[in-house]
Amino acid sequence: MKKIALLGSTGSIGTQALDIIENNRDRFQVTVLSCAKNTELLSKQIKKFNPLIVVVDKEEDARELAQIHKSIEILHGPEGLVEAAASSYDILLNSLVGMRGLVPTYHAICQGRDIALANKETLVAGGELVMTKVAEKGIRLLPVDSEHSAIFQALEGNKREQLKKIYLTASGGPFRGYTLQQLEHVTLEQALKHPNWNMGSKITIDSASMMNKGLEVIEAKWLFDVPVDKIQVAVHPQSVVHSMVEYVDHSIIAQLGNPDMRVPISYALGYPDRLENAFEPLDLFGMGAHLTFEKPDLTVFKTIQLAYESVEKGGSYPVILNGANEALVELFLNKKIKFIDIQNNIERILHSHVPSYNLKLEDILEADQLARRLVKELVG
Amino acid sequence: MKKIALLGSTGSIGTQALDIIENNRDRFQVTVLSCAKNTELLSKQIKKFNPLIVVVDKEEDARELAQIHKSIEILHGPEGLVEAAASSYDILLNSLVGMRGLVPTYHAICQGRDIALANKETLVAGGELVMTKVAEKGIRLLPVDSEHSAIFQALEGNKREQLKKIYLTASGGPFRGYTLQQLEHVTLEQALKHPNWNMGSKITIDSASMMNKGLEVIEAKWLFDVPVDKIQVAVHPQSVVHSMVEYVDHSIIAQLGNPDMRVPISYALGYPDRLENAFEPLDLFGMGAHLTFEKPDLTVFKTIQLAYESVEKGGSYPVILNGANEALVELFLNKKIKFIDIQNNIERILHSHVPSYNLKLEDILEADQLARRLVKELVG
Repeated sequence: MKKIALLGSTGSIGTQALDIIENNRDRFQVTVLSCAKNTELLSKQIKKFNPLIVVVDKEEDARELAQIHKSIEILHGPEGLVEAAASSYDILLNSLVGMRGLVPTYHAICQGRDIALANKETLVAGGELVMTKVAEKGIRLLPVDSEHSAIFQALEGNKREQLKKIYLTASGGPFRGYTLQQLEHVTLEQALKHPNWNMGSKITIDSASMMNKGLEVIEAKWLFDVPVDKIQVAVHPQSVVHSMVEYVDHSIIAQLGNPDMRVPISYALGYPDRLENAFEPLDLFGMGAHLTFEKPDLTVFKTIQLAYESVEKGGSYPVILNGANEALVELFLNKKIKFIDIQNNIERILHSHVPSYNLKLEDILEADQLARRLVKELVG
Repeated sequence: MKKIALLGSTGSIGTQALDIIENNRDRFQVTVLSCAKNTELLSKQIKKFNPLIVVVDKEEDARELAQIHKSIEILHGPEGLVEAAASSYDILLNSLVGMRGLVPTYHAICQGRDIALANKETLVAGGELVMTKVAEKGIRLLPVDSEHSAIFQALEGNKREQLKKIYLTASGGPFRGYTLQQLEHVTLEQALKHPNWNMGSKITIDSASMMNKGLEVIEAKWLFDVPVDKIQVAVHPQSVVHSMVEYVDHSIIAQLGNPDMRVPISYALGYPDRLENAFEPLDLFGMGAHLTFEKPDLTVFKTIQLAYESVEKGGSYPVILNGANEALVELFLNKKIKFIDIQNNIERILHSHVPSYNLKLEDILEADQLARRLVKELVG
C-alpha cells in the first residue's frame, strides 16, 4: 500500500489524481490532503479518502473543518504545508500552483520522501538546490507534466549518457501562428481557451504565452541533467506526441497518447508499474492520423527565448523570470494588463536584473519577492 | 571485443553491417563472412576484415577463393553455413534471404550463440521451434528489421505483461491506395521502386505486395510472445515512425528516425549500448514534419489477411505461406507471373492445405518444399 500526501487536492491535477487513487484503492492510501480555499470540495474529499492530515490556507477555514472532522489533524498556511510535507508517507504529489510549491517539496525531500512533481516552479526557481538535495537523499523525483513524463518514459531502459537531444513538444496554444502585432490585441477570454488541454487558469495563460514551454525547458534541464542547448521545443498542435528523446545512434524514442493528464499522473503514482485504466485510448487512425511538427517562432513568443537566456545565466535569473511571470499572469487574469505586457515586462525586469548565485532556500524566496515587487513598481 | 559471424555479407544488410563494423573496429571483430555468388565483393571483404571462416554457395567458388586466401577456412553450400554457424563467436548476424536462413540460425542457437536476426523467414516458418530453443538456451535474439527493432526499443525498461497492443507500421509500398483492379496491371519495374527504403529485390517485392508486413506480424508474434490480435498494422507512408507499443495505461512508446537500416543494424550489434554514428539525423521539421497513419486495405492487400489467418491456424500454415510466397516472388522477378498472382496463388494454396503440427526442423523444411512444389504445379 503506497501512502500518498496530496498537496493541491481540489485543483485540476489533484482531483484527477484522486479519481485514479479511488480506482486503485488496493494500491494507494491518502494520508494528506490540502487546498487553498475550496473547503466544500475538500470536505467531500476528506469523507471519501479519510486522510490523517489536512491543510488549508486560512486559520478560520481550519477551525471550521476541525469542528466537522474531529479525528483529523487540520493545519493551515505555509507552515501547515511544511508540517504536512514532513509527515510520514511514501510519495508527495505536489500539485500546488506556482512558487509556493517549492518549500513543501524541499522539506519533503529533506525527509527522504519520493516526489511526484506537478509543480514546475519548484524546479524552475529551485532547480539547483532541489536536485542537489534529491541526489543527497537518493529519493525518486517523478515528473507529472505530460512532457516530462514522456521524456522520463523515453529514457527508461536507456543510458542517460547516450542522450543526444530532447524534443519538448508544445501545442503552440491558442495563438499559434500569430504575429507580434496580432498578439497585442488578444483578450483574456481568448487566452483562456486552450485548444487541447483542460487545465487550471495560471497554466492555461502560460500555455498561451508559451512561457509554460520556457518553464518546461528549465524543468527538463534539472530533471534530466541536460544542458538547455540539447533541448529543442517542437510545436505539435495535435498534442499527441508528448515529447521525444534522440540518442547518439539517431534513434528517437517518443511517448504518445491522448492529451489526458491522468496518464502522467497515474504513471508517476504507479511507477514502476503502469496502472490499468478505463481512459479513452488514442485513436491512431482518428486523432492520431495527422501529426505535425514545426519550429516555434521565438521572435513572437519571446517567453521561450527569455527562459533559455535566464537558465543559461543561472543563479537568480530563473527565479526572477518565474516570479515576474506569476505576478504578471495574475495581473492579466485580473484584467489589469494586456497579454503582451506579460512577456514585455519580464524582458524589462530580466534585462536590468543584478543576479546572485549559489542560492539557498531563503535567497530563492527573497529573489521571488523581489520579482513581484518589481512587477508592482512597473505595472501595479 | 565482440566477435561477429555475418551470413549474407554481400547483400544490402551485410554491406551496411560491415560499414558499421569498420567504424567500430575497437568493438567488433568479424569471424565469419558468407555470400551466395558475389565472390568478387566477398574477396574484398575478406581482405578488409580478415575472417577465420568464409562460406560460399558453390564448391568451385570455394576452391577458387581458397587459392587466394590460403590461411582462411573456405566452406560451401548449406552444410558450410551450418558449420560456420556452429563455430566460435559471440553473435550471429543472419542476413540471408529467405528460408535458407532457418537452419544456420537454429544451429547457432543450439550452440548458445546470440542472434541478430535480419532473416524474418527464420521466425515465420520456424517460430515455435526457434523460440523454444531460444528460451532453452537463454540466448539473446535481437531483431534487425526496423519495425521489430523499434518494438524492441519501445519495450526496453517496460514490463512485457503490461503491453496492450503493437502498432506495426508499414510504408504501404508503391501501390498504396490502389484498388484490386489497379493491382492487376502493375509491372515488375513499378514493384521494384520502393518509395522510402533501399533494400534487396525479394523484400522490395514483399513490401509492394505487403506480404512483408504479413511476415512481420508473424515475426513480431514470436519475437515478443504476443497474440496476433494484439498486433495492428498501421500504414505510415513517411516511414519515420518505425513501430509503437501501447501499454495498459494507454501510454504509447514509439521509435522514430530516418528510414536507414544502419540504425537497427547498429542497435542489434551494439546492444545494450547505442553506437555513436555519423548518419543523417531525422529532420523533425523537414522529413518528420508531417506524419500520417491509416488502416491498411485488407481487401486489396490480401497478403496481410492471409498471414494473420495462417499464424492463427498455426502448424505448417505459415511455412506454406512463406514458401509459396518465396517461390512466387521469384517467378514474378523472372517475369513468369503477374504481381497479383502472388497473393492469389498463396490464397489458393493455403485454402487447400492439410496442415501438420508440432513441427521439427525436418518437418518445416519438408512443408517448405511442398509449398514450392505446389507453386510449380499451379504456375510453373
